[in-house]
Amino acid sequence: MRATTIHAPFDMRVEDVPDPRIERPTDVVLRVLRACICGSDLWAYRGVAARQPGQRIGHEFLGVVEEAGPEVRGFAAGDLVVAPFVWSDGTCAYCADGLTTSCVDGGFWGSVGSDGGQGEAVRVPYADGTLVKLPAEAASDDHLLTGLLALSDVLGTGHHAALGAGVTKGSTVAVVGDGAVGLCGVLAARRLGAERIIALGRHTARTDIARRFGATDVVAARGEEAVAAVRELTGGQGAHAVIEAVGTEQSMRTAVAITRDGGAVGYVGVPHGSGTGLDLSDMFDRNVALRGGVAPVRTYIPELLPDVLDGSVDPSPVFDLTVGLEGVPDGYRAMDERTALKVLVTP
Amino acid sequence: MRATTIHAPFDMRVEDVPDPRIERPTDVVLRVLRACICGSDLWAYRGVAARQPGQRIGHEFLGVVEEAGPEVRGFAAGDLVVAPFVWSDGTCAYCADGLTTSCVDGGFWGSVGSDGGQGEAVRVPYADGTLVKLPAEAASDDHLLTGLLALSDVLGTGHHAALGAGVTKGSTVAVVGDGAVGLCGVLAARRLGAERIIALGRHTARTDIARRFGATDVVAARGEEAVAAVRELTGGQGAHAVIEAVGTEQSMRTAVAITRDGGAVGYVGVPHGSGTGLDLSDMFDRNVALRGGVAPVRTYIPELLPDVLDGSVDPSPVFDLTVGLEGVPDGYRAMDERTALKVLVTP
Repeated sequence: MRATTIHAPFDMRVEDVPDPRIERPTDVVLRVLRACICGSDLWAYRGVAARQPGQRIGHEFLGVVEEAGPEVRGFAAGDLVVAPFVWSDGTCAYCADGLTTSCVDGGFWGSVGSDGGQGEAVRVPYADGTLVKLPAEAASDDHLLTGLLALSDVLGTGHHAALGAGVTKGSTVAVVGDGAVGLCGVLAARRLGAERIIALGRHTARTDIARRFGATDVVAARGEEAVAAVRELTGGQGAHAVIEAVGTEQSMRTAVAITRDGGAVGYVGVPHGSGTGLDLSDMFDRNVALRGGVAPVRTYIPELLPDVLDGSVDPSPVFDLTVGLEGVPDGYRAMDERTALKVLVTP
Repeated sequence: MRATTIHAPFDMRVEDVPDPRIERPTDVVLRVLRACICGSDLWAYRGVAARQPGQRIGHEFLGVVEEAGPEVRGFAAGDLVVAPFVWSDGTCAYCADGLTTSCVDGGFWGSVGSDGGQGEAVRVPYADGTLVKLPAEAASDDHLLTGLLALSDVLGTGHHAALGAGVTKGSTVAVVGDGAVGLCGVLAARRLGAERIIALGRHTARTDIARRFGATDVVAARGEEAVAAVRELTGGQGAHAVIEAVGTEQSMRTAVAITRDGGAVGYVGVPHGSGTGLDLSDMFDRNVALRGGVAPVRTYIPELLPDVLDGSVDPSPVFDLTVGLEGVPDGYRAMDERTALKVLVTP
């Protein structure tokens, strides 16, 4: 089959690789209908996160079960399913707690020896613990299918950030980061009943989506200027719930600075940089909490799915460029150059 | 009157200072019955936290109202009251949220221009928002009075840490720090229903108190050795709720390392050191939250008071040395040299 591989920074290729097959009785082989490129894939693309030459890539996908191993109970050939961005056994103590990202048998798509989502097919370990079934009729609804793809990562990750930030009905929320996760954070905050949502971003195309997703205010600034603007919008106090969806030291500093005393930063931007960007003394004096991390989206899919199916939550606008599988390297280039927000891949 | 002043690192004096008087109609003048020395006072004593020469000190005290300003509603001369370690107006948005430490009119005892608790008397601003009345009969119960003094800081701070760490019924808790706050963290965790409480500490006298307060296990180690021991006690996973009651980079590193994936560090040790001690990537990968800060003990006193009054919570063992007011400099020396855990002052 054809699949995307990464050979060196900025060297993405689409190559012939061995067809996936059932290796363990709990595996499923899944034919990919939709995949996409994640902002976090760019860390590998840019060489910030190390990869071995030829490693697969892509951790967001949905598709049709082609073959199910003999011990798979919940899925059969022909089922339409979505995969979260890590696999998990569904049975360990962490999975029982809903923290599927800490599963003792879990792993990341595209890690050495595993398939990635940016390819024609994927071997899915622990299929019963990992996959979630989608209604068969969604397969013929192009728009819906794109929205459902967001369940594999960005929508659940935005939801995790909103929960970490403590968003509840009536909250004032600020969102640092105008990428797909930040925008999904806006969507998740609105879904959780936030009354006011301040989106920080300087790209009109993106902040327009933020407004469409429920942002009530946009702050087109960064750093101290952004902090001052958010404080001014919130009577000098800051937002009780702040979503951090970038992962740099500067974005973390901004997030803490715009959090109201007693509030929380829900952080889902993968941390990069030598320090933390955190002023712990300031956080201590103001009782600002920090809660988040890699999102256990498998746990969230059943809760978010009905809202995507009925259209009340529609994350599909985050996908603004579509490529075929052979076009994946172009997709990376476009996201790296920020000419695309998020790239949809239709193998 | 006589009061403790700090002139330079290690230079504590007890001197004649002006008697406090009602300056604003919302003030109370309080005669101190019991005060104490806090581990955090040692940061000033050691010169780590800067003070102006002659500044007052001491932020934990209880006593009897001597005079109440004309606008004070809740207190009259003769009332027995306890003061939390910051004053607060009781009416601002933060006070309404229970975050009295962020009160817009709040302040710390011993800050420039204010009285400290280690003296004969204190002018208490915003008395109605700040003080909490105690039963008059407690004044004649020496043991109880000592326990009630812990409401001014250490018991409420331990409670704040336990809440920040997310302690609930059945939790497995680990406590980093065997000072009075750490020990009160043990007490608070037990009160909140923790099933297992692992106290980290290498001083038998202190860990004996921890056991008396409810610790089920003691780890007499630091750093990596302590991490390994806690992990071994918890099936390799760590504790879901970890109380950090030291404030150094090493203690924070230890606290994060012994937290179970998905758990939280409740931190109340005043942060000192140039960095944070936090490995944000590790916290991200394992969804370890950080929640805490300066404890709004004023908010907690009404909840904790009944348990101290009925003896079901007795923090008094944390006081292991008693001095008169003139003995306060000796008390600092004893705490600095760790020959005393916490010094009670009886002016």
